[in-house]
Order: sequence, then C-alpha cells, then structure tokens
Amino acid sequence: MNRTDIETAAVRFKERYAYFIRETPLWKMPGAALGIGCREVWLKLEHTQTSGSFKARGMLNRLLSNPIPSAGVIVASGGNAGIATAAAAKVLGVRCEVFVPSVCSEAKQERLQSLGADVVVEGAVYAEALQACLQRQQETGALLTHAYDQPEVVTGAGTLAREIEMQGGCVPDSVLVSVGGGGLIAGIAAWFGDRSRLVALEPEQAPTLHEARKQGAPVDVHVSGIAADALGAKRIGSLAWQLTQDHVRESLVLADPDIRDAQLWLWKQMKLAVEPAAALGLAALQTRAYTPWQGDSVCLVVCGGNVDPATLG
Amino acid sequence: MNRTDIETAAVRFKERYAYFIRETPLWKMPGAALGIGCREVWLKLEHTQTSGSFKARGMLNRLLSNPIPSAGVIVASGGNAGIATAAAAKVLGVRCEVFVPSVCSEAKQERLQSLGADVVVEGAVYAEALQACLQRQQETGALLTHAYDQPEVVTGAGTLAREIEMQGGCVPDSVLVSVGGGGLIAGIAAWFGDRSRLVALEPEQAPTLHEARKQGAPVDVHVSGIAADALGAKRIGSLAWQLTQDHVRESLVLADPDIRDAQLWLWKQMKLAVEPAAALGLAALQTRAYTPWQGDSVCLVVCGGNVDPATLG
Repeated sequence: MNRTDIETAAVRFKERYAYFIRETPLWKMPGAALGIGCREVWLKLEHTQTSGSFKARGMLNRLLSNPIPSAGVIVASGGNAGIATAAAAKVLGVRCEVFVPSVCSEAKQERLQSLGADVVVEGAVYAEALQACLQRQQETGALLTHAYDQPEVVTGAGTLAREIEMQGGCVPDSVLVSVGGGGLIAGIAAWFGDRSRLVALEPEQAPTLHEARKQGAPVDVHVSGIAADALGAKRIGSLAWQLTQDHVRESLVLADPDIRDAQLWLWKQMKLAVEPAAALGLAALQTRAYTPWQGDSVCLVVCGGNVDPATLG
Repeated sequence: MNRTDIETAAVRFKERYAYFIRETPLWKMPGAALGIGCREVWLKLEHTQTSGSFKARGMLNRLLSNPIPSAGVIVASGGNAGIATAAAAKVLGVRCEVFVPSVCSEAKQERLQSLGADVVVEGAVYAEALQACLQRQQETGALLTHAYDQPEVVTGAGTLAREIEMQGGCVPDSVLVSVGGGGLIAGIAAWFGDRSRLVALEPEQAPTLHEARKQGAPVDVHVSGIAADALGAKRIGSLAWQLTQDHVRESLVLADPDIRDAQLWLWKQMKLAVEPAAALGLAALQTRAYTPWQGDSVCLVVCGGNVDPATLG
C-alpha cells in the first residue's frame, strides 16, 4: 500500500480495464459557486464510477491481484462492496457469491442478481451473514473480498487519489473524505501522505474513526442513522487505523440532518444525485464544521450514488 | 453570432460570473465503456449547469448585453428558459416576470417563485401565455428574453461549444445535439462551423428541424411526447434555421421509448439523472440511428437535468 502499488494498479486499470474502471470527472469551481469562502472547490464525481461507488476500484484490484479459484469470489455485503464485487466478478467472468442478511431489500438483492451474483440470505443482521460467508469460504476456497480491510482493496481506492492529482494538475490543499470502515481514506492517505490536509468525516451515529482516535485504538461502536448503509462499519479497519494515524489531521462528525440537507442541496442546486454518505464533505463546509483558508483548494470526494431517486424529491 | 462574440461572452462569464455560469464537466471515456463502437465518447455534463440546463448561458448573456429597464425582464416559459431567466435575473438583482400557462405544474411555479420571479398564469396553452407576455411587455417595456431565437441567447449557448473544445483539447469528430427551437445547436454551429460533424436529434413527436429540412423552410409541427417539455417548440427558430442549414450534416429523429431507455440507462449505469431531452445523444448511439466511425470521438451534449427524480426509479 504505497505509491508504487497504487501507480501499478492505476496503470493496469487504464491500459486494460478502461471500459470498466472509469476516470470519473473532477469538477473544479470557485468556492463562491457553492457559497463557500475558499478559492476553489473540487468535486470528485466518483459516484459515477462503475457500480455507483469508488468500491469498484478496490474490488477489481483485489480480484486482479490474486489467483481466482474455480469457486470464484465471495463477499458478505448488501451494500456498495457487494455490488462492486459482483460487477468486478462479472467483468472477469468468474463466479460470485454474495451473502446478505434478511434486512437487505429485494431491490438490492435483484441488483446483485442482475450482475450475475448468487445471493445467499443468511441471518438477521450483517454479523450473521458475515459468519455464514466465512464458513462457506472455508468450504469452497473462494477468494474473499473485504469491504475495506485488505491491502489490495485499499490500494485500489488509492487510485482515486492519484486520479485527483493528475486531473487537478496539483495536490489540493485539503481533501474531505467520508469514513465507514476507512478503506477509502486509507487509500487516499497512502497516495497523498502529508502532501495534503486530509480530513475524515463521519456521521455522529457511525463514528468508528472518531471513537478510535478518542480511545487510542479501534473500538466497536453502535451504528445507525442516515448513512449507515454505506458508512455503517462497526469498527475502523486495521489498515485504515494505521494510515490515518500517520496522515489524517482531523476527524470530524456531522449530524444526520446536516448530511441530509447537503445531499438535497447537491441534487437541487447541482443536479448531482448522490447517497447520504457522499454528502458529508459539503455538509462539513456548509455547517462550518470544517473551515478552509480563503486561498485554499478543497477537494470533496463524492463517493457514491446508490440512492433511491424517489428520496430526492 | 460569430466566434468572436462567443469568445467575448465566455470571457465575461469566466472573469465576472464564474460563481454563476459553471464550467461543467467534460467526461471522456472509451466508447467501450458505454458499449459503443467508437474510440471515445465525451459526455458534456451540462445538466449540472446553474438552473439545471444550458439555458442559463444564453439568458445571462442576453441580460448582460442589454440595458435592463426598471421593469426588469420578462419571459413566457414554464420550462428551462423560464427557470434560467429567473436565475439570471436574480443574480443580477433585477425584477423578473414569468408568464406560464395553467398546465404549468405547481412545482414548477414554486421553483420560479423560489428564484424570486413573479409568476403570472395566463391561458390554457403556451401560445396564450406568450400572447399575454408580449402584451405585458408592451406596457412595461421590460426586456424580453426568448427561449432560443435571439442572437445573444444563441451566442450564450455557443460558449458551451467553446468550453467543449477547450476542455477536450481538440474538436470532437462529431457532436450530437438535441433540438427544440434550436438555440443550442445554433450556438454550437456558430462555434464549430464545419470543423466537427454536427448531428441534430429530435423526438419523432417534436421534429421541428427535421420537418423544416424536408419542406425546405421552417414550418409549424404538432408536438407531443416524452421530451415535449424541453424540446416542444412548434417551429425551428429563424437563427437556428440559418445556422443549421450551413453547418448541420444530419437531422435524425428518435422514438420516445428509445429516448426513455437511454434516460434510464444513464441513471442506472452512470448515475446521471437527466431529463429525457438530454438522453437523445445516447439514444442515437444505442439504437444505431447514428453510427460513428471506429476511430471517432463523439461528443454528447447532456443538456438538462430538470427531471422529477421519482421517474427514474
């Protein structure tokens, strides 16, 4: 998980999988266009990535970096990690089993099936689905993908940061990143290191990194609220813990109503239809939880678009 | 309406109104990412423009190019032209009256009001609202904006083409543009001239340019169907007629179900929430109504995002 690994992954994506991993738009505008008192805001429109979130980068990198057994790949997730794994498996033409808890909606199960995945419903909550998934993996020997805590997954996410720097022509003064299990911010930290001010953002009701920093070590937290479907990991990943300790300057939490306001603002004012987890950066600026310097360029990672459009009306 | 006028308008936007007229993203990808057999597809994401469509460019340019009387500005439109005029008037701090027919939804009227416009409901159909608007303009002397058939409006739309060329680093081999009254394609033709292959796209049920080309002159057509709210002009504008005669190579019509399929594809596969009128370019490629050469770069102008998100589900 260093810059060389990220470079290698990015070049492989570009040379052989450009029809799958998209170079998503980086949208620069004056801060004033968003009513924010800084020189520039950069919106990295990663919600338009294949599978509707940045997770396609990590999952494809995981699959390309390992021999894939005839049993294929296996994952426990009813959310973006499951969708991204299924999409990556489909493009490589390998089997994919996705374990989900019974709370996973019909619509999400159908989406996974439409990507060719075998969906297995096990248990009432995520932990039970994960347990069943791990047991099945032992039996079949399938390649397990983890939503955030595997080096290849973090490296894949890091290609997003490299892309921001290449498209932007320089390193932004700060980067605001939503954190669930921390795979995305870990990848971004691995690429930027201390060259940019990295700010971690979490919902008040899912503060895995914030609590870990308070306690001095990763701890389980209770998660709920508006962004729990995407940022609902119970504990910060061990890879993310290490990388954020080294390179993340601030860890901030935001209230659900402010996240929701920012999400609706992005739709109404910018015509960007994004999931709540993708709106934390704007919420941090709009509530002044994070106040950039006047001359700064601030990059917001708009990380996912898997939203029911009816909720944007 | 020449390149110098467009250049002047674009520089004024950038230097003084960059917080209002956005430099919207140009998203380049291999044709294969969209399942299209050409080298590159460029999506110009103009649906993320202020006011939700390209029309903000023309309306602001119209307002900046004329003295604005104390009566302010006036327009007849329940659609994107009305919204764009109201938004431009708001940013300049001048009064705005918008005449709409009674078929204009409450939601649209509220949106106009939220932009500070005085909304006047007159008549059952657009023609009657326009008549009342013109009469009112005679009384007050307010500056009239027309949705497409004024030189400053066409020039403003032309700034979009200049932006594509600057962002893309070259002229795309072809540009696919939706046509209603023709203001957008006229501006694009004024900028590109014969340097790119310009293709005009219309719904079968609103073929103003297609019929004019068949008949050899602009004629009234009956308009209906999925994109009529945005492309529902009854007759091609006189400025557009002239410019398209000179520079548009092909005029194609598309069926509503194909337009709808492309609109849903843009949402489901790309997380772009756009109005039907903005999906004609992709529909033309997906149905092979337009087949680019293998080595071509094809630019699709994604012109508007004023869609009820509930219709994307």
